[in-house]
Parts: sequence; structure tokens; C-alpha cells
Amino acid sequence: MTLAAEIDRKVRDSFARQQAMVTIGASLVGLARGEAEIALPFDPKVTQQHGFVHGGVVAMIADSACGYAALSTMPREASVLTVEFKLNLLAPAKGERFVAAGRVVRPGRRLVVTLGEVFAEEAGRRKQVAMIVATMMAIEGDAGIRD
Amino acid sequence: MTLAAEIDRKVRDSFARQQAMVTIGASLVGLARGEAEIALPFDPKVTQQHGFVHGGVVAMIADSACGYAALSTMPREASVLTVEFKLNLLAPAKGERFVAAGRVVRPGRRLVVTLGEVFAEEAGRRKQVAMIVATMMAIEGDAGIRD
Amino acid sequence: MTLAAEIDRKVRDSFARQQAMVTIGASLVGLARGEAEIALPFDPKVTQQHGFVHGGVVAMIADSACGYAALSTMPREASVLTVEFKLNLLAPAKGERFVAAGRVVRPGRRLVVTLGEVFAEEAGRRKQVAMIVATMMAIEGDAGIRD
Amino acid sequence: MTLAAEIDRKVRDSFARQQAMVTIGASLVGLARGEAEIALPFDPKVTQQHGFVHGGVVAMIADSACGYAALSTMPREASVLTVEFKLNLLAPAKGERFVAAGRVVRPGRRLVVTLGEVFAEEAGRRKQVAMIVATMMAIEGDAGIRD
Repeated sequence: MTLAAEIDRKVRDSFARQQAMVTIGASLVGLARGEAEIALPFDPKVTQQHGFVHGGVVAMIADSACGYAALSTMPREASVLTVEFKLNLLAPAKGERFVAAGRVVRPGRRLVVTLGEVFAEEAGRRKQVAMIVATMMAIEGDAGIRD
Repeated sequence: MTLAAEIDRKVRDSFARQQAMVTIGASLVGLARGEAEIALPFDPKVTQQHGFVHGGVVAMIADSACGYAALSTMPREASVLTVEFKLNLLAPAKGERFVAAGRVVRPGRRLVVTLGEVFAEEAGRRKQVAMIVATMMAIEGDAGIRD
Repeated sequence: MTLAAEIDRKVRDSFARQQAMVTIGASLVGLARGEAEIALPFDPKVTQQHGFVHGGVVAMIADSACGYAALSTMPREASVLTVEFKLNLLAPAKGERFVAAGRVVRPGRRLVVTLGEVFAEEAGRRKQVAMIVATMMAIEGDAGIRD
Repeated sequence: MTLAAEIDRKVRDSFARQQAMVTIGASLVGLARGEAEIALPFDPKVTQQHGFVHGGVVAMIADSACGYAALSTMPREASVLTVEFKLNLLAPAKGERFVAAGRVVRPGRRLVVTLGEVFAEEAGRRKQVAMIVATMMAIEGDAGIRD
């Protein structure tokens, strides 16, 4: 994965400021123009009542992967906000580690449409557990919002 | 809000086992047949890069509120799983406290469709910051899944 | 339902140019600031394989009702385009007449979020058969697009 | 594209009974296990106010392509109903001919999750104009519903 150094730094700096990612233990593990990957090791602290990873936590890493995939295609000075997303939970989020991979389907000046997949890894195998479609918006020059 | 004691206890027990809710500091504050409310005080640990509550965290409380609204209408022995949801982020999730209110739009034997709103509270005022539509599934007798 | 005369005329003119609405037999039956209603009498020509109204036809009237609800809140010179929508089919679309009611949940300068319901009417009774959430975009001054 | 003859016939028979597809002029042009393609030539009768194909008509062919992709993976005696779908309109639906391609992402006994793309063809070129994610349900033995 390659990306202009400046945008690479901007995305990594922005991710580092997402305290919610620190709280759940997620990290940015891949980045290219129009693509981003976020990994989350299993931890009881992110589970729902059946012991699987909570659907909203799956949404967190999927949304962030799509958001950074989108941001990597935006102008240097732009910030990104999620307009909306839809998440389908395809199988219980059960495994040792989870990887959310987001990619840009349609870049745009204001709106960027992204598609993402979340995989559960266990005993060396990978299984898709969720699919997300997210619409991202580029924001420029808005007071107080900076990526 | 009233609800048959047994279902009330089942929902509260299930919520108490959602460790992800403990991690972010959310609590179940309302429950009735077909309705549930979850509150989340602001905490820097759930923020995204702009200092607002992360969209995925908004999804967590919205998804859980809808899931418990659905569970409250299901048979005693049923468990609930989220099939899919769509979240629209209407305004930055900025405030002192957030409340997700979910309600059943269409009950069903297997599938229950729910609608939810998330509000931000600040200085005594309430503003809607998100809307969710979620499809929930009732599961009965599946090994290892219990609400 | 009342609305400034000029916007009322703009919305009605735009609807009249939707040939797809003529093809299926739909008409605009209600209009107010932030609200629009479209009615569709049952006709075998809009059915799917089980004899119910096709889900995509339900989407047509729901999408248009939401689009005109949004357009009614936009500046005079703006046009409206659908960015995305999610439709939940709650019950088979079976009846004598169908009414899609759309309303604005969050107005905005560029993006307007709407919520809509589709009802089936039969023997004097009304039953909700679908729910839609749609994101609309205001377009100004784009060559060739005019409402 | 190959498919067991019996399922192939079941899907084609079901499509032939979708009068809404006849009304808009759509035809089934591809079918394989877990995949279906529907084509729609441009016709003014399916346009919205700007002269593009109506978003709901795009939804019709996308929904049907996903529904038949799902049906092709279901037991012989099952029928298919759309539970919900989300459609992102990526570009104005402008062209000579439109092709909706649906495929199964996650097969299941009751619920089948599908992903689809809609392309516009013009002057020998193909451009994606929409993306759909749809949840389909298998129905067996329900009175009056037969594919």
C-alpha cells in the first residue's frame, strides 16, 4: 500500500486522535489511496450479551475504515464526517482478531461512497462477519473540525 | 414504562452482560413493551478525531436500544440478534449526555423492525443527532446464545 | 397543507414531469412545507410474481414522496437528487390503494434527511407496509438539472 | 452461467410473472447459482423530472436481480421476499441501457444477504450508477406465495 506521504501522515494523525479506537484497542494496519484497514484483537470488554463482539463495535471499526479510505482521496485540507452507513451482520463476530477493510466505490468532491467488509480471524482462518456501505462527506474550512 | 416482570428481568440481565456497554459507560434507563432507552454520559474515551462521540459508539447505544425494544416483544425463551441496521448521523454528537430511544415498528415472529433516535443533551436542551432503522431476529434454542 | 405558492407550483411542475409516475399511475395528493404524499391505485401492471405491488414500485412512490418533502424546504432555485435510501418492507404490499407519506427529519443546506411510510388501504382500513429513510441533496445551478 | 435446470426454470417462470418488469421493459439476461442480471433499455416512460431513469426504477431492477440471485440458492420449494434494501445512487442514471447485477454475499437457510451493482451503458461504455445491499427471506409453504 502506498500513498502520498502528506496524506498518509494526515490520516495516521487523525486516527491517533480517535480515543474511541484506543478504548477498544483498535489500530490502523493498512492504508492506500482509497483503502484503509483497521484491526481489533478480541477482548471481553467489547462483547455483547452472548460473548461475541458487539455489533456497534463492529460498526466502529467498519465506519472508521471507510472514513479513512474516503479521507485518503480527499483534498489535503479536507476533513471527513460520516453522513450515514448501513451494516449487515452476516455471522456472529466470534474470533481472535477482527479486520475491517474499507474502500472507496465512488469518489466525489463532497460525497464519497464506500464499501467495507469485516472479517473474523481464528486459528489461521478468515471469515466475513459484516458488510458496510457508508456515505462520507468532505468538509473544508469548518471551524473546529480538522483531520 | 411497565413491562411483565419476567421479561423486564430478562432484558435487564441481558444488558448487564453487555460488557461493551460497561466499557463505554452506558446504562439502560427506560424499558417498556416495545421500547427501550439507553443513556451515555460524555467521556473523552468514546470520541473520534474531532472530539465528538464516535459514530460507531452512537451506533452501539442505538443498536442496543433497538435490540432490547425488540427483545421485550419476543417470547420469553427467545434471544435477539441484530440482522442489519442503518444509521444516519444528523448532527455532530456533541453534548454532556446522549440518550438512544428505540421502539418496535413492526413486531414479528422471526423478524422485528425497529426505529430509534439518538439525542444529545446539553445545558438542559435536547437535540436529535442520529436516526437508526434496525432489523432484529428472534433466535430460539440455538446452542450457546441466551438473553 | 399549505405552502408558499411558488414552491407549491415548483414541486407540482416537477412531479408532472416524472414520467415514471404517470407510467405506474401515481399522483401527488398532499404537499406542505417538509411533507409530501403520493398515492398509487392498485394495478396488475405494477405487481411482482406473487401478485403484490413490486418492492421497487413501493420504493418509487416512497422515494418521490421523500424527495418532494425535501424539495419543499429547499431554496427556490434548487433541484433535488436522491443520494441514497433504505426501504424496509414490513408486510406484503396488498391492497386497493397505496399512500406514501414523506417528511423531513433534518433540513440542511446541502443534505436533507427524510423519513417516510407507505400504507396499503383496503376496505376502509390502512396498514403500514413499508418504511423508508432517504438522504436527499440540493443541487443549484447544475447544467441540465432543473426542478 | 450454469444452474440446475429445475431452479433455472423456477426463476425464469417467477420473473415472467413479474408484471412490473414487463411494464418497464426489463428482462432477465443472466442467471447462475447465486447470481442474476436484469437489463432495462432506456425509455422516457421510466424517467424522473430531470430525464434520468427514476431512482425507484433503478431500485426495481436492482431489487429483482438480488431477489433472483438469492432464489437461485434456495431450496426448490422456497419462495423469496425482500426484507429490506439500501440503494446508493452514485451517478445520474443516464444511458441507452441499464444492467443490474445481483449476487449472494451470504447464503442462509432463512435470510440471504445480497450485493448488487447497476451499470449504465452508453456508446459502448459502462458506468456504475448505483449500488444495492438487500436482505432476502426464504418462505416455504406460505399460503398463496409461490415462486
